[in-house]
Amino acid sequence: MDFHYPNGKKFVPNNPSAAKARTNRTSTYSNRGMTLEEDLNETNEYYLANKIALIHKKPTPVQIVKVDYPRRSAAVIKEAYFKQASTTDYNGVFKGRYIDFEAKETQNQTSFPLKNFHEHQIKHMEQTLLQHGIAFVILRFSKTEEVFLLEGEHLIHFWERMINGGRKSISKMEIQENGHPIPLGLHPRIDYIKVIEKLYSL
Amino acid sequence: MDFHYPNGKKFVPNNPSAAKARTNRTSTYSNRGMTLEEDLNETNEYYLANKIALIHKKPTPVQIVKVDYPRRSAAVIKEAYFKQASTTDYNGVFKGRYIDFEAKETQNQTSFPLKNFHEHQIKHMEQTLLQHGIAFVILRFSKTEEVFLLEGEHLIHFWERMINGGRKSISKMEIQENGHPIPLGLHPRIDYIKVIEKLYSL
Repeated sequence: MDFHYPNGKKFVPNNPSAAKARTNRTSTYSNRGMTLEEDLNETNEYYLANKIALIHKKPTPVQIVKVDYPRRSAAVIKEAYFKQASTTDYNGVFKGRYIDFEAKETQNQTSFPLKNFHEHQIKHMEQTLLQHGIAFVILRFSKTEEVFLLEGEHLIHFWERMINGGRKSISKMEIQENGHPIPLGLHPRIDYIKVIEKLYSL
Repeated sequence: MDFHYPNGKKFVPNNPSAAKARTNRTSTYSNRGMTLEEDLNETNEYYLANKIALIHKKPTPVQIVKVDYPRRSAAVIKEAYFKQASTTDYNGVFKGRYIDFEAKETQNQTSFPLKNFHEHQIKHMEQTLLQHGIAFVILRFSKTEEVFLLEGEHLIHFWERMINGGRKSISKMEIQENGHPIPLGLHPRIDYIKVIEKLYSL
């Protein structure tokens, strides 16, 4: 059974051991079955281990209401609720610069639906750009396993086009024209920092 | 009753309405009764509203095990556990630069006990500095309401002194000599960005 946040977003439990088991299943590279989040976690671990960048996924925001506290070593949260995040999911630092992004995937083949994003994420990207941070999204077309990096400025443009009555998605051609393909690898799986390094001449 | 994390750290529930009620209680400035976290949240909201910087506190990391899902609009987490964080509590961006810090207070008057910090926080600060991020701690002596900013490099030095058999705290004099006092204000309450701006000539 799937759980959803109040905003309709699917809840994906954080389960590193499942991801690990899946990685160990085969020694040859096959990305099928890995979620975009798992691929990015592996990529960020690679960046950390190789001192390339320091990027973390933020914890899911939860409002804790009731905690059982049978003994010092074992607090159990008995009642809590999902809270609306006020930022994007990933942030960190690369060569001193602030890095901030959101990652989304779609089953669509010809366009990326904007309903994958939320008002607060777009707002946070605008705030990041205002502070001269580097803001972007990583978009995956699951069926073809193509991954693109699209800079925040472009996403905001397409979002505003929708707000002003335009189409509710970004066509794949628009993503190909404005975004940057990220080649898939083994280690790291999704080398987005290489794209950032080039784009911003870092 | 107080709750504690497995590492012994006190659990402070996130309760913005209580903080607000406390703020409204008096219109003249009195910091007594406000926690350091509340003061920093107010400060970060001020920075955001005035487009000075974009800094957020990270959510408490929680491992969610069981979710009740009576209807779409109301998911209730019924079983979850506190997880050890792998980063510090606050991060964000100021003039393009990556900002990362931890905030701690002590009832001690003559020194700051290093048991307020954890191995993973020190490690994260080292990783931040390696990526040319700006890492520091905000230290409050609660009794006298004095607040200092101490750069990560200094904290790491004092931590290593302890690891090598030296004292288990930083003396107040050492903090005065190596750190930077942050004057308390009304809006923002703890203007740490002003100190950073000057220190790093931003």
